[in-house]
Amino acid sequence: MTKKAFQDYYPEHFSHCYGCGRLNEHGMQIKSYWDGEEAVCVHLPKAFHTGGAPGNVYGGLIASLIDCHSMGTAAAAKCRAENRELGNEPALRFVTASLHVNYLLPTPMGGPLEIRSRIKEIKGRKVIVESCFIAEGKVCATGEVVAVQIPEHMITVDGKK
Amino acid sequence: MTKKAFQDYYPEHFSHCYGCGRLNEHGMQIKSYWDGEEAVCVHLPKAFHTGGAPGNVYGGLIASLIDCHSMGTAAAAKCRAENRELGNEPALRFVTASLHVNYLLPTPMGGPLEIRSRIKEIKGRKVIVESCFIAEGKVCATGEVVAVQIPEHMITVDGKK
Repeated sequence: MTKKAFQDYYPEHFSHCYGCGRLNEHGMQIKSYWDGEEAVCVHLPKAFHTGGAPGNVYGGLIASLIDCHSMGTAAAAKCRAENRELGNEPALRFVTASLHVNYLLPTPMGGPLEIRSRIKEIKGRKVIVESCFIAEGKVCATGEVVAVQIPEHMITVDGKK
Repeated sequence: MTKKAFQDYYPEHFSHCYGCGRLNEHGMQIKSYWDGEEAVCVHLPKAFHTGGAPGNVYGGLIASLIDCHSMGTAAAAKCRAENRELGNEPALRFVTASLHVNYLLPTPMGGPLEIRSRIKEIKGRKVIVESCFIAEGKVCATGEVVAVQIPEHMITVDGKK
């Protein structure tokens, strides 16, 4: 497997996120890829990432995964809309302006969790990402995230990118 | 300090949440208390709970803390509205129907994080909780959570509460 994920292209200085930073050794290091028009992330939660009842996945984890995956998807979608490669400079990075999650069903622990996302809107520096959060073939939650592109001068920090 | 937090009254079977379960030894074990009309939670994040840039708090953690604190606040508010003690049977537990977070400012790492919440609405089994997420004296995010009371027969599991 040599396929690079969206997150593998993040500038070094922006790769420390607990959810998606490849340089955060304690973090979840999620990976997102295109699957046609959808962006997909598959994540196997740790045994202790339980909700109140031990058989269910922690709701905060669900929100976190939707958030991080949506940020990566926003960057990848903006690149695609501009006909440029993800790794090209200047890097495009996004931050979350708002996160909305609807919890539809308890999410069972034990198997992989999948987030499948589509772009609802790209307008200027703003990208809106819609997601389905799936476990055991069922949509257990949905998400809508508004991502805002970080100005380039804020990505370059002390000469590091 | 012998004051009990909202979460200290959760039934054993519902105390495994990564965010607020007192029995989840790997979890954050947050604690929430009344402060007049507001419910307050103070949490010191772990050093690795960073966002993309290492000086900022992970957005997923912010969402998680707002979520868990709101669930505890919903239970405490429902008890207060019914003039009953938190520890009385049958236990009142809530799950998240929806979570909405607006991220207003980057949240700086290093100090304690404070969530201050108020009840927007109590109607039947539904409680809506509004929150301010504060770091270094600034409101860095706001949250609105819709909590739904779990039916009593789902709280009693295999005779355990």
